[in-house]
Amino acid sequence: MKIDSTKLDRAFNPQCVAVVGDSKQTNFEWLRGQLEFTGKLYSVQVNPDTIPEIKALGVENYTSLIDIPKPVDLVIVAVSRTVAPRVLEDCIKKDVAAAHFFTAGFSETHTEEGVELERMLKKRAEEANLHLIGPNCMGIFNPKLGIKQSDDQYTDGSGLVGFISQSGALAVTFSLEAHLQGLDINKSVSSGNGIVLDATDFLEYLGGDTEVKAIGMYIEGVNDGRKFFETLKQVAERKPVVIWKGGHSEDGDRAIASHTGALAASRTVWDTMVRQCGAVAVSGTEQLIDTLKAIIYLPSVKGNRVAVAGGSGGQSVAITDSFAEVGLRVPPLTQESYDELATFFNVVGGSYRNPIDTAGPVRRDMRRILEIVERDANIDNLVLICSTKPGRQMMPAQLQGSLELASHIKERTAKPVMVFVFLFTPDADREKRDIIFRYQEIGIPAFPSIERGVIALKNALDYHHLHDGK
Amino acid sequence: MKIDSTKLDRAFNPQCVAVVGDSKQTNFEWLRGQLEFTGKLYSVQVNPDTIPEIKALGVENYTSLIDIPKPVDLVIVAVSRTVAPRVLEDCIKKDVAAAHFFTAGFSETHTEEGVELERMLKKRAEEANLHLIGPNCMGIFNPKLGIKQSDDQYTDGSGLVGFISQSGALAVTFSLEAHLQGLDINKSVSSGNGIVLDATDFLEYLGGDTEVKAIGMYIEGVNDGRKFFETLKQVAERKPVVIWKGGHSEDGDRAIASHTGALAASRTVWDTMVRQCGAVAVSGTEQLIDTLKAIIYLPSVKGNRVAVAGGSGGQSVAITDSFAEVGLRVPPLTQESYDELATFFNVVGGSYRNPIDTAGPVRRDMRRILEIVERDANIDNLVLICSTKPGRQMMPAQLQGSLELASHIKERTAKPVMVFVFLFTPDADREKRDIIFRYQEIGIPAFPSIERGVIALKNALDYHHLHDGK
Repeated sequence: MKIDSTKLDRAFNPQCVAVVGDSKQTNFEWLRGQLEFTGKLYSVQVNPDTIPEIKALGVENYTSLIDIPKPVDLVIVAVSRTVAPRVLEDCIKKDVAAAHFFTAGFSETHTEEGVELERMLKKRAEEANLHLIGPNCMGIFNPKLGIKQSDDQYTDGSGLVGFISQSGALAVTFSLEAHLQGLDINKSVSSGNGIVLDATDFLEYLGGDTEVKAIGMYIEGVNDGRKFFETLKQVAERKPVVIWKGGHSEDGDRAIASHTGALAASRTVWDTMVRQCGAVAVSGTEQLIDTLKAIIYLPSVKGNRVAVAGGSGGQSVAITDSFAEVGLRVPPLTQESYDELATFFNVVGGSYRNPIDTAGPVRRDMRRILEIVERDANIDNLVLICSTKPGRQMMPAQLQGSLELASHIKERTAKPVMVFVFLFTPDADREKRDIIFRYQEIGIPAFPSIERGVIALKNALDYHHLHDGK
Repeated sequence: MKIDSTKLDRAFNPQCVAVVGDSKQTNFEWLRGQLEFTGKLYSVQVNPDTIPEIKALGVENYTSLIDIPKPVDLVIVAVSRTVAPRVLEDCIKKDVAAAHFFTAGFSETHTEEGVELERMLKKRAEEANLHLIGPNCMGIFNPKLGIKQSDDQYTDGSGLVGFISQSGALAVTFSLEAHLQGLDINKSVSSGNGIVLDATDFLEYLGGDTEVKAIGMYIEGVNDGRKFFETLKQVAERKPVVIWKGGHSEDGDRAIASHTGALAASRTVWDTMVRQCGAVAVSGTEQLIDTLKAIIYLPSVKGNRVAVAGGSGGQSVAITDSFAEVGLRVPPLTQESYDELATFFNVVGGSYRNPIDTAGPVRRDMRRILEIVERDANIDNLVLICSTKPGRQMMPAQLQGSLELASHIKERTAKPVMVFVFLFTPDADREKRDIIFRYQEIGIPAFPSIERGVIALKNALDYHHLHDGK
C-alpha cells in the first residue's frame, strides 16, 4: 500500500476525531481521553441506553460514522472484533484520513478465527488504501492537541520526542514515566499488530516531522527487516533514534508471538544493525528515557573521561565502579590541577583526587574546585552530585546554591555537564523529580540514580562517536 | 589484639552510652541521634558555652569521661583529630567496652600527619586492648535500643538483618532504603578505617548473634584476606551473607584509597572467593536489599523456571527477557495445563501461554488460573504481577483481592511466590512501597521493578543452589 503522508499528517494533527463504539463497561475511556482535544470530537454509538451518557459528557453522538457532518481525520475504533469489518467499511466510505483500531482479538490470539479476521481486515484496508493503525493498539498521543492514548496522559505543547511502540501499555507508561523525568512527548503512536501501517511507516513519518527532535522506539519485531533498516538509516542521519528491542530470548520471542504476533530476531543481530544505521540500542524504559534526555540536553560527548564532584566516600566508589563497568573512566586530574587544589582544599573528611569528595565545610570552595576541574585536560565530562545527608531533605537555599553553581560551570565550558541526584527520605522520589526538573530548566540533564546517569552518558557518547566521527 | 565478644556484646547492646565532644556546629547530631536510647546517655563536653545547650536536650554532661558515675558500654567520639589521642587515654582509663571514633582526618587523607596519628591511635588501643571502632566511621545502629548512626534512622525491634559497611554514608543510606522496602536492621556497624576492629571482626560477631538472621556487607577491601574468607565461610554455613564489593576498577580502587585507605582486589577474584565461601556477591544497595529480602522471605528456590501471571503484553516480553538475561526461564506450561486453561480462558486481549497476560475481564478467573499454574510440572517459581492501568492508582478493593489471591496461592504451594509491583502515577513510589509492605506482611516478598525482582530471585536461586545442594 502506498503511504500518503498527507493522511498521516491529518491523523497525527487532527481537527476532527470520531470515537466508534466506546462503552459504559470501560467508563467511556476513549471519549474521556479526548475531552481536552482542541478540535471537534464526535461519538458513534447505536445503543440507545448508552447515548444519553455520551451526551452527558458533552459529546455529540451519531449512530453512523457516515452521518458525521465533517471530514474525519482520525477514527478511534473501540468495537468488538466481530463488528470491526463493518466499521472498516464505514471508514472507507467516509474517506477518513486514518482509523486506529483499539479492537483486539486477531492474530495475537493464535486462533483460526482471529487470524482469518485479521487477514480480511488487512486485505480490505489495503485494497481501499485505508490508513489503518493497529489493530490491538492504543493509537496516537499528541499532547499539544489533547489527543490521548489514555485519560491520564498530559496535555502540553513543549515536547520534543517522537515515540513509536508495538506495545500499547508501554506507549502509555513510557509517556508517563518520561514526563515524570522531565522528558515530554511531541507525538507518540502505538502500532499494535501493524497490519497496514507498521513501526517502519511511523518511523519514516516522524523522521520527517520537524517538531520531533528525537525518536524513541519499542520494537518487538518487524515484517520487512530490509525496509526497516533502510528507513532507520535515513532517519538516524537526520535526528537521534533510540531503540529498545523486546524479545532477546527464546522465551521472550514466545511472549512476543502471544503479544503482537511479530517475528523477532536475536538481540545481537539487532543491536549491531541498529548501530550500523547510526541509531542507539538500549534495553528498558528507563534507558530509553535517560538516553534521549542525555542526547537532547548535552552538547556532543567527545570523550570517556569523567570528573565526579560533590559526593561522599562510598558513593564515589560506587560511581567510579559503575562508569568503569561501561568503559568510561574517572581518571586522576592533571598535576597542575592538584597543585592548584592543594592551595586551599582542606583534606580532612574530603578528597581532592577524582572523584572529588566534599564534606560540609568544603562546599564553600565548590565553585573554585569546579572551575579547576572544568579546565583540566584529563577531563571530558563533568558529573555533579546533588545530595543531602542521608535522611535529610534538600533545603531550598542549598538547592538554589547548587543550581547557580551548576549554571555557572555550564556557561564556562563546552564539556557536557550532568547531575546525579541522591536523596534518602520516604519522599525522595518526588523530591528528586522536583530537583531534576529544576536542573533541566537550566539545560542540565539530571538523573535519579548512579546506574541511570552512567548508562545515559555512555549511550550519548556512543551516539556522538557514531555521528561526529563521520 | 584478642577480640573480646563480651565487650562487643556490651557495645552492640549498651546500657550506658557517652558522647564525647559533640558540638553546636553540627547541631549536636550525635547526641540528638541517641535521644531515643533506652539506656542511660551522657555527654562529655568541656566548653562552658556549649554545656547549657546539651543540658537543654535533657542530657547530663560531664567535663571528663572519667567522671561518669557508671560503667560505660559505648563511647561515641566526635572530637577533632588532634584531641583524639587524649580521649583514647580516657577511654582506656575508664575501661569502656568499646569506643566508636567518628573523628576523621587519618590515613584516608594520605597526609604524613594523618597516617602518623592513626598509627599512634592503633598502637595505643591495641596495647591497652581497647575495642576501637573506626576511626572515620558512623559506628553502631541498634534500632531496638535506639542507638543510631544518624538522627533520621528508625527505632524498631523487629529487624532481622545485620549490616557491616566500610562506608559510613552507605551504612546510613542502606538502613533507610532497606526500611522503605520493608527490610529492617537488627544491628548495623560502619567500620571506617578499621584500625583495631575491622569488617572481619564484625562479621564474626554478627555471625554468632542469634537475633541476626542474615548479614549484608559493603566491603571495599580487607587487611587480612585469609582471615576474612575463613570467617566468611564459617558464618555463611550458619546464615546467609550477601556482600557488595566496592572498587571493581582501577579508578574505583583509587577512589577507595582516598576513602578508607583499604587495599582492594579485583572483582572476579572476590566474587569467586565469596561464592566459594557460600555467600552471595552483589553490586549496589538495591541488590543487597532485594537479595536479602528474597532469601529471608522465600522458601528454598529449587529451579530456574518461572511462571509470570497478571501482566500485559509489553511488560511480559520485558520480564521474560530480563529473566533470560540472568539465566532464568519463563517456559511454556505443560499441555495438561493448557488444556485445562482452554476450558474457560477467554483469549481475546489476553494470553494463556506463559507469561499469562490477563486483561480486565479475565481477572475474574485469576484464582483458577493460578491454581493450574501452581501445579504445573514445568514451573518452579511463581511471579505475580500487581499493577493497574498506566496512570491509575491501585484501588483498595483491588489490592485486597490481589493480596487474598496471593495468600491463597502461597498457602497451597511449596514453590517460591513473589510479586512485582508496577504503577505509573506521580506518587507511584510511595504507593508501591505501601503495596510492598502489605504483601510482605503476609510473607510474600514484593519488588518495585522488573530488574530488581529478577536479580533477587536469581541470587536467591544461586544461594540455595550452593547450600541445599550439599
